[in-house]
Amino acid sequence: MFWVLFGIFLAACLAAGSTGGLFSPGPWYRNLNKPSWTPPDWVFPAVWTTLYLCMATAGARVALLPDNGLAMAFWSLQVALNGLWTPVFFGLKRIKLGMAVLSALWLSVAATLWALWQVDAIAGLLFVPYLVWVSIAGALNASVWRLNPREAKESGELT
Amino acid sequence: MFWVLFGIFLAACLAAGSTGGLFSPGPWYRNLNKPSWTPPDWVFPAVWTTLYLCMATAGARVALLPDNGLAMAFWSLQVALNGLWTPVFFGLKRIKLGMAVLSALWLSVAATLWALWQVDAIAGLLFVPYLVWVSIAGALNASVWRLNPREAKESGELT
Repeated sequence: MFWVLFGIFLAACLAAGSTGGLFSPGPWYRNLNKPSWTPPDWVFPAVWTTLYLCMATAGARVALLPDNGLAMAFWSLQVALNGLWTPVFFGLKRIKLGMAVLSALWLSVAATLWALWQVDAIAGLLFVPYLVWVSIAGALNASVWRLNPREAKESGELT
Repeated sequence: MFWVLFGIFLAACLAAGSTGGLFSPGPWYRNLNKPSWTPPDWVFPAVWTTLYLCMATAGARVALLPDNGLAMAFWSLQVALNGLWTPVFFGLKRIKLGMAVLSALWLSVAATLWALWQVDAIAGLLFVPYLVWVSIAGALNASVWRLNPREAKESGELT
């Protein structure tokens, strides 16, 4: 049963992650001013693949345990938010709205980590690299916003 | 506890549904040939709001029950796929890939309905309108594909 659950949670991660392949960095992103520590493009899919394996493992472990309601609800929320950033940032080119999505994602990942931890410490630990990576992504999005005030102003208004 | 879980699952639905507001039907969609039974634009957000309330209720009910692992895993998968269609169809204007997304969504909703039903029949029933609506959306996407062969050919190749 663990592997069935692992497969379903991994499919959910890949559905969210597919937006990364569909809305990939184009000329617009390459021409933005980026901080010196911006990772090269190939790092992102490599990191996400690792994170998805950790997330699916954590989900499957906790799905088998009692009193998992809160952890399962937060797991769903974070995966729904996970697929949003790339269409907003690379698709719509909205830097400020991307920052809002990443902030919501960060909060949902932190909440999932905490809720998983209550049920199974290993599952909680498996979400730590994810929270670290979303923090880095948030810092990168914030830097891009700061370094491209005109782009952020033109494309990032919510209304 | 039910209402906390309901709120988290509803937030997940709204995260997925936000793509409907971000990638809304534009001139491209209006100029496509559509079947005579195509619902007017305002029907879609009204139906989805109702469905999201049903989905969140079903999720919260089953999250509180034992042996919910499979249902929770499938609930996550369907919400991850739910947010994909609008960016693919309205954002990328890829009619055939939209059909693939809707097919995957339909399968995941049917699987979630079945898995919810094993734990709580009411939760399963709450997913019936969702499956009906995704069937209608699939028929609409298929009709748009058939009625716009050139658009589908130009925009729908996966590679």
